[in-house]
Amino acid sequence: MRGEIMDRPLLVSGIVTHAERYFADAEVVSRRVEGGIHRYTYRDAAARMRRLANALEALGVGPGDRLATLAWNTHRHYELYFAVSGVGAICHTVNPRLFRDELLYIMNHAEDRVLFLDLTFVPMVEALAPELETIERFVILTDAEHMPRTSLRNATSYEELIEGASDDYEWPEFDENEAAMLCYTSGTTGNPKGVLYSHRSILLHALLSHAGMGQSAPCHLDSYLAIVPLFHVGAWGVPYMITMIGGKLVLPGPAYDGDSLFELMDAEGVTHSAGVPTIVTTLLGAMRERGRKTRGLKWVLCGGSAPSEALIRAFELEFGVTFVQGWGMTETGPVAAVNLPTAAYDRMTQDERFALKRKAGRILFGVEAKIVGEGGERLPEDGVATGELAVRGPYVISRYYRDEAASDAAFDDEGWFLTGDVCSIDPEGYIHITDRSKDLIKSGGEWISSIDLENRVMAHEAVAEAAAIACRHPKWEERPLLVVVRRPGADAGKADLLAFLEGRIAKWWMPDDIVFVDEMPHGATGKVNKRLLREQYRDYVLPGA
Amino acid sequence: MRGEIMDRPLLVSGIVTHAERYFADAEVVSRRVEGGIHRYTYRDAAARMRRLANALEALGVGPGDRLATLAWNTHRHYELYFAVSGVGAICHTVNPRLFRDELLYIMNHAEDRVLFLDLTFVPMVEALAPELETIERFVILTDAEHMPRTSLRNATSYEELIEGASDDYEWPEFDENEAAMLCYTSGTTGNPKGVLYSHRSILLHALLSHAGMGQSAPCHLDSYLAIVPLFHVGAWGVPYMITMIGGKLVLPGPAYDGDSLFELMDAEGVTHSAGVPTIVTTLLGAMRERGRKTRGLKWVLCGGSAPSEALIRAFELEFGVTFVQGWGMTETGPVAAVNLPTAAYDRMTQDERFALKRKAGRILFGVEAKIVGEGGERLPEDGVATGELAVRGPYVISRYYRDEAASDAAFDDEGWFLTGDVCSIDPEGYIHITDRSKDLIKSGGEWISSIDLENRVMAHEAVAEAAAIACRHPKWEERPLLVVVRRPGADAGKADLLAFLEGRIAKWWMPDDIVFVDEMPHGATGKVNKRLLREQYRDYVLPGA
Repeated sequence: MRGEIMDRPLLVSGIVTHAERYFADAEVVSRRVEGGIHRYTYRDAAARMRRLANALEALGVGPGDRLATLAWNTHRHYELYFAVSGVGAICHTVNPRLFRDELLYIMNHAEDRVLFLDLTFVPMVEALAPELETIERFVILTDAEHMPRTSLRNATSYEELIEGASDDYEWPEFDENEAAMLCYTSGTTGNPKGVLYSHRSILLHALLSHAGMGQSAPCHLDSYLAIVPLFHVGAWGVPYMITMIGGKLVLPGPAYDGDSLFELMDAEGVTHSAGVPTIVTTLLGAMRERGRKTRGLKWVLCGGSAPSEALIRAFELEFGVTFVQGWGMTETGPVAAVNLPTAAYDRMTQDERFALKRKAGRILFGVEAKIVGEGGERLPEDGVATGELAVRGPYVISRYYRDEAASDAAFDDEGWFLTGDVCSIDPEGYIHITDRSKDLIKSGGEWISSIDLENRVMAHEAVAEAAAIACRHPKWEERPLLVVVRRPGADAGKADLLAFLEGRIAKWWMPDDIVFVDEMPHGATGKVNKRLLREQYRDYVLPGA
Repeated sequence: MRGEIMDRPLLVSGIVTHAERYFADAEVVSRRVEGGIHRYTYRDAAARMRRLANALEALGVGPGDRLATLAWNTHRHYELYFAVSGVGAICHTVNPRLFRDELLYIMNHAEDRVLFLDLTFVPMVEALAPELETIERFVILTDAEHMPRTSLRNATSYEELIEGASDDYEWPEFDENEAAMLCYTSGTTGNPKGVLYSHRSILLHALLSHAGMGQSAPCHLDSYLAIVPLFHVGAWGVPYMITMIGGKLVLPGPAYDGDSLFELMDAEGVTHSAGVPTIVTTLLGAMRERGRKTRGLKWVLCGGSAPSEALIRAFELEFGVTFVQGWGMTETGPVAAVNLPTAAYDRMTQDERFALKRKAGRILFGVEAKIVGEGGERLPEDGVATGELAVRGPYVISRYYRDEAASDAAFDDEGWFLTGDVCSIDPEGYIHITDRSKDLIKSGGEWISSIDLENRVMAHEAVAEAAAIACRHPKWEERPLLVVVRRPGADAGKADLLAFLEGRIAKWWMPDDIVFVDEMPHGATGKVNKRLLREQYRDYVLPGA
C-alpha cells in the first residue's frame, strides 16, 4: 500500500528558488578572475540564473545535453551549476589541471555541446579546440570589456550571452532521478571515468551530509568558503548545501595562495570551510604568519587524503578551530564519512583524542559501509581486520558513464561500490584508512601501509612532505622507498629520519632508502601523484637489493 | 538521461540500523506506565525491534497491514514505530483522548488488525472491544507481572509476545513510497480523516526539518524530550530525527504535569524540546516555581497553535532558552515552517524581535507555500493581503485515506493542499496566521481575527487563557464574544479588560461581551476546543443584540 503523499521531486532548481524567496538578501561573494571582488545576493543570483536558462534554451540546449565548464570558483560558475541542471541539462565540470589528452578524452567522451571557460584557460582551449569533436560554441566567463581576441569558434562572453535574455523563467519539473551533473575522476589506471549525479543524489547528499555534520553543521547565519574547486565533485556539495540553508557562500576565484585565502576569509567572516590537506596546510601557514586565525573561523572539514595529526593539532590547539576529517570519493557524492567530536572525548586524554581524530570518521546516515577480503567475503569490524572498503547509498554511483569495463570492475556481487581504499573499521564504526588497494607495499607477503609510514615521518620537524612508494626488491618482492621534501632551512639527512622512525614503526616497515627532492609531483586535486612517483623511481635500486 | 546512482530507498528501518551501528551507546530514556524510569541504548532498542519484527511476522502480519497503538510516549511505543513500519506494515497511532465514537470510527475505518495499548487504556478499550470489527488481538504494553485480568480477546503482554522471538532479523527492502504510518486528524466537521505517511515522507521530513532548524538543530551530543505524544503526527517526527542523528531521546511516558516534566528533563539534561503552547506553559510554570530552567535546556520549539508573546518572552528573557515557533499540521508532516533567529535581529529593538517571533515562521526548504483568495487566485506576499495558506511538498498529503469527499475539498486545482489556516506572508516570507478559515469572525463583511483578539487580551496580567468566538448578531451577522479564564487570585472584570483592549485593537474588533469561566474546554492536542465552545454559546445573547 502506497503512502498518500505528494509526488514532489527533489530538484536542484528548488534549492535556488527557496533561497531567493526566503534568504534573498544573503550573499554570494566571489573573487573575480578579472580582479577584485564580486558580491551579490541570492535574489540577484536567481534572476541571473533564470536569464541564463532562457539563453541556454535559445541556444537549443535540451534535456540531457552535456555542457562543459573549465572554470574557477566564481559567481558565474555557481550560476551555471543551477541553471544548467535547472533546465534539465547536465553540468559537466572539467578539471583544468588535467593533462591535454585527458581533457580531450573527457570532453569528447561526454559529447559536450558547449564549453564555458574562464579567461585563464583560453590559450589552453584554443590549442585543444581542433580536436574537441562535439563542442559547438565557447562561452568565455567574462564581459564584453574583458573579452579577448580568440580563435575559438562561436565565442561569446557570458555577460553578452545572458544580457538580452529575460529573467522570467519557470524551472521545469521532471523526475528527480534525471542526471544533473557529470564529473570525471582520474583513476590510477586507464581513462578518466565519468560519474553522473542525479538531482536526487545531489539533494540527498546536501541533506544527509548536513545532518551528519552534527554540531559543526553550518546554518543560515554562517559563512562558508568553498575552497574545494567547483570542478571537483561539486565542490563537495557545498554550493548546494549552503544555498539550501541560506548561508553566505564565499568563492575564492583563481587565488589559492595563503595570503589571498586569508584576506578573503578574514574580510567575509568565514565561519566554515572544507578542503584537502594541501590547501588547509597553506591556510595554516598564512594564519601562523599573522599569529591569528581568520575572523570568525570555527570549523574546517578536511578530506581527499588523510591530514597529518600535526595539522589537526595546529588548528585545534594553536587556533581553537574545530578540525573535522572526512572521507569520500567522486564516486560517493563525495562526503560519506566524517569524524565528529563525540561525547567520548570527555573520557579521553588529549593524545587519545587526536589519535581518534586521525581516523577518517564514521559513515553518515544514509550510506552503508562494509570491508571485504580478497575473496569478497565480509570482514569483521573489530578495528583489526583490514580489507577493501565498500559502500552503498542513495548518492553512490551505480556505474560509470558509458564505461562498461570500468563499471564491471567497480562493484561486488551484491552491488556495493568497491572504493579501492583499504581500511579497518572499529567497533564504534571509525574507519581507519590504511592505504589504497593499488598503493600498498607488500613485503614478503605482508602489507606495509604507505600512509602510516608517511604520517610517521611527517611528524619530524624537518619534513614538509613525504611519500612512501613500493620499489622492487629481489628478496621481498617490494620494499618501501621514502621520498621526502624538507622544510625550508631544515637539513636533516637520511640517517636522522631513520633514527627518528626507529621504535615508531615495526622494524620490517623501515624504508630501505630515503631520497630528498625539492618538490613532489601533485595531481589535479592536490594529492601526491604516486603513479608518477612510482614511474620516476621504477628503476631505482635500493641499497642492498 | 537518468543519473547513474544507486537506487537505494529511504526506509524507516535504515534509521535504527544506522543508530545501532554508529550510536550504539546513546540512550533512549522513558518514564514507564508501570512507574519508574526505563533506560536503554540504541543497541538494546534495535535488538528488541528485531524481536518484535519476528513476533509480528509470526502473527501473520504482512505488508500494508494496519496495526494500531493507543499508547503514551514510552520505549515500547518507540519500538513499535520502527518495527511495524520496518516489516512493511503500517503503524497506526490512535489518539486516546478522542471520544468513543471517533475511536471506533478510526479503528474500524483503518481496519486495524492488532491493537497495542497501554495499561492506562485497558478499561476504555474493553468497553470499545465489542464494536471493534477488525481487531484480531490485543497486545498490552507491559510485562507478565503487570498483566491485568482482561476481557480483551487474544490478549497478551508485549514482553511475552517478543520474549521468545529471535533478535536475528533482516529488515526487508521495498519502495520508499510504501506507507509506514497512519494518523487521523479531527477536522472541525465530519469524521476524522486519515493521513497515510510513506517511508520517503517520514525520512524527508526528518532531514528537511532538521536542516531547517538552523543553529537550533539538535546533534548527536544533544538530548531531546519528545513531549508531543507519539500518537500525534509521529511526535512531530522527533523519534525519527533524533535516532537518525544519534542523539539521546527522552520520553515522558504518561506524566505531563509540570513537576514530572521538570524532573525528567533536569535528570536527563534535556537540551531540546518541542510542544504545544499549553504544555510549554506548564513547563514554564514548573521552571518559575523553582526559579531556574532545567539543567542544560537550550531550545524549545512551540507549535500546534500560536504561543503568546508573553510565553516567548518568558523563555527567552527569564530563562535564556531560545524559543522557536513552528507551524504545521497533521497533513503537512507536520513541521512546514519555523521562526528562527536571523541576522536581522541585530538591527532590531527587543520589541521588534518579539513581534517578529510571534509570527509562525518561514517555510522550510523542500516545502512551498502560497496564499489564495476566495476565488482560488494567488495573492501577493506583501504582509498585507490575507488568504488561505496552501502548501505542497514531498511530505505533504496528496489525499486522505479512503475518504474521497474530504480529499476532494482539500486540494486546489493545481494540487496544493488547502490548510484552512488564514494568513498573510510578508516579503521576507514570514507567515502570520490570523485565523482558521473555519474559525473567523465575520462582522459586517469584514474579518475579525479571533487569534489576534485572544493574543491581545492574553497580554493582560489577569488573563490565564482566552478564546474569541463568533456569536450571532442581528445587525452584523457575527460579533466576537470573549471567553476568559482568570489567573488564580486575579479579579479583573469585564470593564477592566475592555479598557485594556481600548486602543490596542480596532474599534470594531471590540468584543461585544466577555464571560469568565473556571476552565476552558480543550481538545485532544491541548488546543481550546472552539467547536465545543461555540456550541455552548450558540444561543448566547450579546448585549444590545
